[in-house]
Amino acid sequence: MVTSTVTTTTSTVRARAEGHALDRAVELAERGPIAGGNPRVGCVLLDPTGAVLGEGLHLGAGSPHAEAVALSAVPASRRAELSGATAVLTLEPCHHHGRTPPCSQALHDAGVTRVVHAVADPDETAAGGAAWLRSVGVEALTSADAGIAPAATARAEELTRSWAAAVRRRRPWLVAKTATSLDGRVAAADGTSRWITGPASRAHAHSVRADTDAVVVGTGTVAADDPALTARDADGPLAEQPLRVVVGERDVPPAARLRRGPGQWHHVRTHDLTAVLEELYGFGARHVLLEGGPTLLGAALRAGLVDELHAYVAPVLVGGGTAAVRDLGVTTITDALRWRTVSTQRLGDDLFLIARPEGAQ
Amino acid sequence: MVTSTVTTTTSTVRARAEGHALDRAVELAERGPIAGGNPRVGCVLLDPTGAVLGEGLHLGAGSPHAEAVALSAVPASRRAELSGATAVLTLEPCHHHGRTPPCSQALHDAGVTRVVHAVADPDETAAGGAAWLRSVGVEALTSADAGIAPAATARAEELTRSWAAAVRRRRPWLVAKTATSLDGRVAAADGTSRWITGPASRAHAHSVRADTDAVVVGTGTVAADDPALTARDADGPLAEQPLRVVVGERDVPPAARLRRGPGQWHHVRTHDLTAVLEELYGFGARHVLLEGGPTLLGAALRAGLVDELHAYVAPVLVGGGTAAVRDLGVTTITDALRWRTVSTQRLGDDLFLIARPEGAQ
Ligand SMILES: NC(=O)c1ccc[n+]([C@@H]2O[C@H](COP(=O)([O-])OP(=O)(O)OC[C@H]3O[C@@H](n4cnc5c(N)ncnc54)[C@H](OP(=O)(O)O)[C@@H]3O)[C@@H](O)[C@H]2O)c1
Ligand SMILES: NC(=O)c1ccc[n+]([C@@H]2O[C@H](COP(=O)([O-])OP(=O)(O)OC[C@H]3O[C@@H](n4cnc5c(N)ncnc54)[C@H](OP(=O)(O)O)[C@@H]3O)[C@@H](O)[C@H]2O)c1
Repeated sequence: MVTSTVTTTTSTVRARAEGHALDRAVELAERGPIAGGNPRVGCVLLDPTGAVLGEGLHLGAGSPHAEAVALSAVPASRRAELSGATAVLTLEPCHHHGRTPPCSQALHDAGVTRVVHAVADPDETAAGGAAWLRSVGVEALTSADAGIAPAATARAEELTRSWAAAVRRRRPWLVAKTATSLDGRVAAADGTSRWITGPASRAHAHSVRADTDAVVVGTGTVAADDPALTARDADGPLAEQPLRVVVGERDVPPAARLRRGPGQWHHVRTHDLTAVLEELYGFGARHVLLEGGPTLLGAALRAGLVDELHAYVAPVLVGGGTAAVRDLGVTTITDALRWRTVSTQRLGDDLFLIARPEGAQ
Repeated sequence: MVTSTVTTTTSTVRARAEGHALDRAVELAERGPIAGGNPRVGCVLLDPTGAVLGEGLHLGAGSPHAEAVALSAVPASRRAELSGATAVLTLEPCHHHGRTPPCSQALHDAGVTRVVHAVADPDETAAGGAAWLRSVGVEALTSADAGIAPAATARAEELTRSWAAAVRRRRPWLVAKTATSLDGRVAAADGTSRWITGPASRAHAHSVRADTDAVVVGTGTVAADDPALTARDADGPLAEQPLRVVVGERDVPPAARLRRGPGQWHHVRTHDLTAVLEELYGFGARHVLLEGGPTLLGAALRAGLVDELHAYVAPVLVGGGTAAVRDLGVTTITDALRWRTVSTQRLGDDLFLIARPEGAQ
């Protein structure tokens, strides 16, 4: 039965099976954390008929890699079938002798003879997995070369985008959050800003905070709002907390809520946001959330540092007060910063939009 | 066969059949125009088994009413069955001797013995249809009294809401449109505003214009943008054009594009927006679109005249320029005007949101 299936397997049939496996690997990987510094990775092991032998995802720094998880998920009764198996991966297997042995070697040792990956490893210290596998006789190739439908590869690229961009640029992916009224206000004339958006938006924003490495605000926001910046849900602070970062020359008041836990906080007395991001990268941050205010957001936008906008828009009109973003140097409408909408969602009465700079991936 | 069905018809079965007929009547009515001064109405005629005998909708002023359309849609072979038939209507049948005989009488004359309507006629000159029908022995009742599921009635109410509110208040339903950047700007510092939103939003806005009785702007918008305010699509001006209205003391420049056709325009030299709306009501307008600018919008909001917001939000940041709405007298965030989101839609890269004042239907 197996033999006859093998002989009838055309490359199209194989590409389809590997495409499904890549979709599944993405689906698995998406359950992993964005925070923590490591990429989200999924791995699916296929026998020569295209049936799944094992699958795994990476659950973040300190946990085994997706390849190791998938290998150990293969039932004892089927371990022999790993000889000649195919590994389908969202990310090129690492070739880095770190806390865990390189995945390239682990796959080869297990008998895997074909390794298909969607995204090349952008990390200089970890790259070279595919090349090494080829040097030891494993058929290692990209999902494009394997003939997998571009949509599956695109999903894997999207999954890996923020981490890969961070590693390539040695600077975290920067998400800028705004929570505004329909007329673009983040506070009323007297400085009050609680609350413009509704409970569903705020809960969403807390879940984003919980899955980011650091949350950044300017000293102006600390002075005006005294935010805690912790990630909370209805039951209180969440287990995972981002590093809370304040940027600006002014002191952080001794009584600032942000000084209290849970989690760490950090004050950077500078206006150089590139330096702040590089410092955060050095701390291991790959995904950072800029939560305002308008001055810091304007500075980050002018410096071209914002990779993604998270805009919560409430059906509220204020008619004055603080605008979401301070002067961008735009005087005529054709010079305005234009973004490409990645996704939209309704959150209670509010709208939530994710956008990236026009032209960006 | 028919007889046996009749005898087994319980009131629950009948309410279900009439509920489906009301849903269908709403669906039909939605194809009618919002513009033109008349309500959108749908009518479904049922035989005693609950099967459809005929259906109709009102296509606007000058066209026959939905009841007449439905009666004439009954095939000759089934006309006899009208005797003892039920009419299910989104709106109470009119009892007004106008261009057409009252629908109350037409239904009775045709032999209809049961008339179920969802929304009571708010028009004093046309109301009384149900009462008159009862006086001549027809079983005339509301959809609620007929035991129809509330959702179907709610859809009919939504269908009729703007027209009914206009007639009740003798003032058109006012929709305020904004087309803003994410930071709530309608123009850059130099006054340029073309284009903030994308082509899909602009096409949508044109189709809304085409189905409204009048489009209103302030003299400031005429001075700044010289808009044509006509309803257009890719092929040029549409057949139906709203009345274009300019409000303010300043003259409309002789060369203003708005002075040219197609369609009529009108200048009201006042700041009294209630008077403007009452005048438009007198012209037959029931649905009016306020297209700005920020001064006029602020005035309309302060006067509590805005029934519905149409907000087009583009993923664009301007960082300065003209805000969507001028001072609302709000100084603290809890006094901001809060709206209830009725629907949201993505239009290309933009978001489109319809909202109504909190507490309003
Ligand atoms: N609704 C919302 O989502 C939201 C979120 C945040 C804030 N807000 C509102 O925003 C208002 C605060 O606005 P803000 O603009 O003062 O706050 P901000 O942007 O948080 O802080 C501004 C301060 O950041 C420092 N800074 C650091 N890097 C800078 C750079 N590259 N360029 C310029 N300044 C830099 C400066 O502080 P030093 O003078 O100390 O150097 C500057 O005064 C409050 O009303 C708050 O409620 C609303
Ligand atoms: N993106 C968009 O959707 C959009 C739409 C429209 C406008 N805009 C922008 O808005 C800007 C124009 O703003 P604007 O505020 O000057 O325009 P506006 O609101 O159209 O016009 C303001 C004028 O309306 C008159 N007016 C009538 N009733 C009034 C009342 N109750 N209270 C106060 N004024 C009343 C006054 O004119 P008199 O002095 O003549 O009495 C006032 O100066 C332009 O930059 C334009 O590009 C953008």
